[in-house]
Amino acid sequence: MSGPFEPNAAGARMYRLAQELFPIHRAVTGPGLRETLRRIAREIPLTLHEVQSGTRVFDWTIPEEWRIGQAFIADEAGRRIVDIANSNLHVVNYSTPIDTTLPWSELRGHVNTLPEHPDWTPYRSTHFQPGWGFCMPHRLFAEMETKPNARYRVVIASELLADGSLTYGELSLPGRTTQEVLVSAHACHPSLANDNISGVVLATELARWAAAKTDRRFSYRFLFIPATIGGLTWLSRNEDLARRIHHGLVLCGVGDPGPVHYKKSRRGDTPIDRAMQHVLKHLSDPPRVRDFTPFGYEERQYCSPGFNLPMGTFSRTPHGEYVQYHSSGDDLSLVQPGPLGDSFEIVTRAFDLLETNETYVNTNPKGEPHLGRRGLYQAFGSHPDGGATQRAVQWVLNFSDGAHSLLEIAERAGVAYDPVRRAADLLLKCGLLEKLEQHNEGTQP
Amino acid sequence: MSGPFEPNAAGARMYRLAQELFPIHRAVTGPGLRETLRRIAREIPLTLHEVQSGTRVFDWTIPEEWRIGQAFIADEAGRRIVDIANSNLHVVNYSTPIDTTLPWSELRGHVNTLPEHPDWTPYRSTHFQPGWGFCMPHRLFAEMETKPNARYRVVIASELLADGSLTYGELSLPGRTTQEVLVSAHACHPSLANDNISGVVLATELARWAAAKTDRRFSYRFLFIPATIGGLTWLSRNEDLARRIHHGLVLCGVGDPGPVHYKKSRRGDTPIDRAMQHVLKHLSDPPRVRDFTPFGYEERQYCSPGFNLPMGTFSRTPHGEYVQYHSSGDDLSLVQPGPLGDSFEIVTRAFDLLETNETYVNTNPKGEPHLGRRGLYQAFGSHPDGGATQRAVQWVLNFSDGAHSLLEIAERAGVAYDPVRRAADLLLKCGLLEKLEQHNEGTQP
Amino acid sequence: MSGPFEPNAAGARMYRLAQELFPIHRAVTGPGLRETLRRIAREIPLTLHEVQSGTRVFDWTIPEEWRIGQAFIADEAGRRIVDIANSNLHVVNYSTPIDTTLPWSELRGHVNTLPEHPDWTPYRSTHFQPGWGFCMPHRLFAEMETKPNARYRVVIASELLADGSLTYGELSLPGRTTQEVLVSAHACHPSLANDNISGVVLATELARWAAAKTDRRFSYRFLFIPATIGGLTWLSRNEDLARRIHHGLVLCGVGDPGPVHYKKSRRGDTPIDRAMQHVLKHLSDPPRVRDFTPFGYEERQYCSPGFNLPMGTFSRTPHGEYVQYHSSGDDLSLVQPGPLGDSFEIVTRAFDLLETNETYVNTNPKGEPHLGRRGLYQAFGSHPDGGATQRAVQWVLNFSDGAHSLLEIAERAGVAYDPVRRAADLLLKCGLLEKLEQHNEGTQP
Repeated sequence: MSGPFEPNAAGARMYRLAQELFPIHRAVTGPGLRETLRRIAREIPLTLHEVQSGTRVFDWTIPEEWRIGQAFIADEAGRRIVDIANSNLHVVNYSTPIDTTLPWSELRGHVNTLPEHPDWTPYRSTHFQPGWGFCMPHRLFAEMETKPNARYRVVIASELLADGSLTYGELSLPGRTTQEVLVSAHACHPSLANDNISGVVLATELARWAAAKTDRRFSYRFLFIPATIGGLTWLSRNEDLARRIHHGLVLCGVGDPGPVHYKKSRRGDTPIDRAMQHVLKHLSDPPRVRDFTPFGYEERQYCSPGFNLPMGTFSRTPHGEYVQYHSSGDDLSLVQPGPLGDSFEIVTRAFDLLETNETYVNTNPKGEPHLGRRGLYQAFGSHPDGGATQRAVQWVLNFSDGAHSLLEIAERAGVAYDPVRRAADLLLKCGLLEKLEQHNEGTQP
Repeated sequence: MSGPFEPNAAGARMYRLAQELFPIHRAVTGPGLRETLRRIAREIPLTLHEVQSGTRVFDWTIPEEWRIGQAFIADEAGRRIVDIANSNLHVVNYSTPIDTTLPWSELRGHVNTLPEHPDWTPYRSTHFQPGWGFCMPHRLFAEMETKPNARYRVVIASELLADGSLTYGELSLPGRTTQEVLVSAHACHPSLANDNISGVVLATELARWAAAKTDRRFSYRFLFIPATIGGLTWLSRNEDLARRIHHGLVLCGVGDPGPVHYKKSRRGDTPIDRAMQHVLKHLSDPPRVRDFTPFGYEERQYCSPGFNLPMGTFSRTPHGEYVQYHSSGDDLSLVQPGPLGDSFEIVTRAFDLLETNETYVNTNPKGEPHLGRRGLYQAFGSHPDGGATQRAVQWVLNFSDGAHSLLEIAERAGVAYDPVRRAADLLLKCGLLEKLEQHNEGTQP
Repeated sequence: MSGPFEPNAAGARMYRLAQELFPIHRAVTGPGLRETLRRIAREIPLTLHEVQSGTRVFDWTIPEEWRIGQAFIADEAGRRIVDIANSNLHVVNYSTPIDTTLPWSELRGHVNTLPEHPDWTPYRSTHFQPGWGFCMPHRLFAEMETKPNARYRVVIASELLADGSLTYGELSLPGRTTQEVLVSAHACHPSLANDNISGVVLATELARWAAAKTDRRFSYRFLFIPATIGGLTWLSRNEDLARRIHHGLVLCGVGDPGPVHYKKSRRGDTPIDRAMQHVLKHLSDPPRVRDFTPFGYEERQYCSPGFNLPMGTFSRTPHGEYVQYHSSGDDLSLVQPGPLGDSFEIVTRAFDLLETNETYVNTNPKGEPHLGRRGLYQAFGSHPDGGATQRAVQWVLNFSDGAHSLLEIAERAGVAYDPVRRAADLLLKCGLLEKLEQHNEGTQP
């Protein structure tokens, strides 16, 4: 779906949280990330984990913790032309410290801009390579170019702590079974609203939703982690646990008004793939579903060949396909309560589907059963969508042979899951269906 | 195909029988059904079975037998405004008896009409629920509405016999093997021409055709049964026999001039599915083939998960998709000899294909054989379709590796079955093909 | 691709050889075929095999060897109206000898023409049936028709030697493994440029290319054979060897400027099928790929069910689909160096792909490896197509799980093979990939 969006309470709540989280100066490690996770922990019972800098995680090493004080460029008159007090995007993330005075000819090589969007400041990081830099609107850069002989005071009061740590947040909600649903959002970008805050607030709202579920079939796990190294860190510490993941979603870019997209898991045909495709097919036309690629967010780690987890990626406009991506244009005017609420509806619909999708056996498989004497026609009549349910009853009876789940039946019938589920409930009540004994679904000890 | 239709003898014969059967007042049980079956038994050696009312068939019970004498609505002057002497659709089938005088305000709730087709009388039944009713043209109903204070004599001289029975007709024609072809048509509707008489007369003509076959590979069974309960009754009494069914067709709505449709079996890829699709593909453009749904006619029972028989459904315009469906508009002007004959051609073409479809082995599999010295080129030359046969010879030789039936070869070559079969016959004659020894095809004891 | 064509050295060399081979009077057996093969043997170390007339090959017998001296039709004044000195197409191939004088009424039944192309002489053969004939432009035939009473001297100085032989040329180039690539071209047609000389010169050039390869993974075998009986002869003498063929191509019609076509092997999904389709997909739009049919060239023998070899057929305009096919219009103006060179490029690209296509295992399968510290980003930067290589690295890492070859990875990624192969090389160098131990790939003893 892409607007107009029905406002809902979840969307409003997510947007308010986004407003609080947006200004924090986050990086892959450090106080900003920690502050973000602590704020989320006031919404849901999040556990914060600290992993020491220098710790080996697979092929990688946890970097030194980055702390940033002030950072600015001042002109010869002492006026601060660029200052992270105004936007934390102005400093290149993970810049090494510097405090010096430079001619423009030396400074300009450390400056990043977006010439096509001269009013926006880009987001950049050093990718842990030693070095420093600033980001600014191209309009300002062009103005500075007119004074080639000017000199500037350049200050980046950063620290790189070898005895620091990487922080991530985790919440585990046990269910009836040990089969897990994993929801992962990265939380390491500074003031970028769609490319990370939207995913963070949606994951928070989903945790609230899962916690409120009285009888969870699946266990749910929520991860708020720094990108790349964060996913690797969690995986390296939880290899056994990763095997329990039966369904999962990476969330990012879920707050813009663009149409929703689903990117399949590497396996391509797992239950989460089928559930998300089903939900999107019945909501949008055409459903925007893409095959797995080894680019994007944490799916790069979760779907690496050594894990190959059944996890897809949910977004609205995919990363890199909106002009504001990784720039100051990605602010709280791009993200809105409507799309956030809509994203929540879609994901919970898919999760509810997975919670309730079962495979049944028709107890009267020879010919059609006599529905009338079981009062089923009255049951259809009393439901606003009784006609769809009545038709779904025949589909469920015919295909409940132990080989078709309700979702598979809905797909074969070409109808939405809900009436199929309702039909199954009616049939269970009157004994015409029974649950197939499953091949040992792991249960909570 | 949809017209113009080549007239043929089968079509003319079917239409004459339809004219005789049309007026009989049929119901799920009772004398009208019995009379219908007896008339068919004068065409083919049909056996009539009677199954007592009250007999349990799976989840159902054979209903009381319904007999209908007169039924009419008369006005205060004694004039019969509605009378089944004029159309047996006027009484709701299975109505309980009544003989009373009622004000219009009470009668009108027992009247069924078709407001969008004000000159047609609908067909309705009580579905075995106690109650009574009439059907009439909406034009007449509207006129009666103008006299809200009128009173009417209402008579339905029906009986419901607890010691009655359900009747069905069956004909079994043994073949070389015990593998059966089942043809099923329902015969329980009163004067509706396409929705049941057309299927009944086509099944009758197919029985005549099968009986005339001198060397049947398959055994053939023909059922003339009341809908729903009739199929269930036969299945409940013949569970073992049902396992022998290798191919089958439910027939209905085969006499209107609309294009032919095939609805696949639940399995979707059985030989009858492939044969019917092949025949339709080479006759009509595009072939109208639909996936199985648990709605329609007796396929609901034959393709229930406990049986899952390889049976498809053949019709011209599918049920419910022509405006005359289940109304007095479905009369002998809708059904015509041309479409009936065309339907016969199509089904016999598919049955002939199944009779002759074999899997062979090329006895000279290394390289092409030398066709010239076996006189094959002369054989091609002597046939009006020799070019197609010559090309088919190469396809048959190349793909007769024991893994491809002739139908599969025709499909792979993208050509019709007939030249492929002719090619195989030529190759068999000169020893270049031999029959694959089949995995124990059941044989007649 | 269909022009304009980049000239290349291979194309020029092939065209020069075609110019030499074109005039030779070839037939299925005899001195012309032998002369052709000897000329090729001056380019590549070809072995000539002679198989005695009368030898049984499967269902066939090697025919008597055909030798042709002069052949002409002269008018009453002794003027040679038709003479194979002008075009060797004028005599029907394998004509029995004749020297007589005939009225036009008797001669005309022995004359073949192409009425739709009145200036072209058709190519015809007797297909080893006793008889004789001439071919001429229809324009000349029409002129002769105006003199119904004229008489003609008819001379065909041919011989059919029962103690002759069928000749074919073979070159085998051993590789690291005994798995073979077979390239087959027929060389039995007289002066037809596209329908046989183009295939012959391309096979010659490919042999030169393979011989120059310093480290061949596969063994390569090149066959220059007469059509039908030639392929059968080789197969009947090399049944064991045929089992070693892992990939193969039948070549013909590769010199005209039409777009390239690939016809799949009977199996349809062998490595040569995938390689050729991949190459064509990345060269032309849309790729012109056809399913196997049992018509055409030597694929009829190689892909007969008793061999079913993984061999496809490569051509530009397929046989029978260009107007010059099997006529004097198929001369050295139809075939050009550009298309010949382009055909060479395409086939060598597919063969190179097969030579280098491997299945690897990612040695760091859990999460993405750290590419930066291995200097891979510099490696990307230094290549003109570095961006594609960088993206391919992620694809190769993610899908190198032992179940996907590089070609399969390229197909999944939707990119060309070359950057994928380059990516694999970089990853092998830094130890991030290792070769999967293959299920005993036969090795040269």
